Amino acid sequence: MTAIDELLRNNERYAEGFTLGELAAPPNRQVVLVTCMDARIDPSAALGLVPGDAHVLRNAGGLVTDDVVRSLAISQHALGTREVMVVQHTRCGMHGLDENALALRIEAAAGHSPNANVRFGAFVDLDTSVRASVARLRGTDLLLHRDRIRGFVYDVETGRLREVDER
Amino acid sequence: MTAIDELLRNNERYAEGFTLGELAAPPNRQVVLVTCMDARIDPSAALGLVPGDAHVLRNAGGLVTDDVVRSLAISQHALGTREVMVVQHTRCGMHGLDENALALRIEAAAGHSPNANVRFGAFVDLDTSVRASVARLRGTDLLLHRDRIRGFVYDVETGRLREVDER
Repeated sequence: MTAIDELLRNNERYAEGFTLGELAAPPNRQVVLVTCMDARIDPSAALGLVPGDAHVLRNAGGLVTDDVVRSLAISQHALGTREVMVVQHTRCGMHGLDENALALRIEAAAGHSPNANVRFGAFVDLDTSVRASVARLRGTDLLLHRDRIRGFVYDVETGRLREVDER
Repeated sequence: MTAIDELLRNNERYAEGFTLGELAAPPNRQVVLVTCMDARIDPSAALGLVPGDAHVLRNAGGLVTDDVVRSLAISQHALGTREVMVVQHTRCGMHGLDENALALRIEAAAGHSPNANVRFGAFVDLDTSVRASVARLRGTDLLLHRDRIRGFVYDVETGRLREVDER
């Protein structure tokens, strides 16, 4: 049995007890969380979110990419959100990742170099990375609201958020 | 008090009871979920995931974008995952979204047209969109494992997943 098959079995039990069918699409708290795909992060538990509360965007690193900007534009212009939390985290796989070594590993598997098309988004300093992501959002006029964009570091060993000070 | 301030207060309580500080980065179930940012979707509950189980990627629509491919390449090559579930959903804001109307709305707010830089990713048929995302991943040789990539539709009114058949 594959992992996906096991998750589908879990979903059958979830659907049997499902009571949230009346929720509307616009997030009740009008907030968006941008964070990492990391398996140790449980956004609902860590922030006390319940279904219907918030949009959640996740990618490798919790970086602000073109796709995050696209998603936030839709979130703010079409679904009424107005605050953004950017949450990157300690012990992230992107922190100190060697882009060239990863590219060589992919090249060995794929038989060609991925360098021309992909930047993986490795970073050397966590607070600097959070500040860069927040700055990119503040400079993006595709967004309707840019006055409540704040950046944080989540400590995967304590479960605690720390706000990254402005520079 | 802003929404973010309320979530930070929730996080203080979460951190006080935190017991997951020993988890490692590689996902235990070696699986990645790609799904929508939609506030009604609670991936952990819907699939029975616990912290440490899976990478979770989320954007507007649950579409396979460049950022998703980047993240999956890192997930598979650096963190050992090997299965991918693509989960789009009923009543999605991207389903039937009028790209031009959204672009005009953004243009009115920003004072210039976003058309040149951004495609929002609207789609007209849900199953077709899931198939396109799965097909893109299967055709991407940046991934190490492409034999367990499966596509689903999540029904936000029943909480149930339905697998999208191959064509």
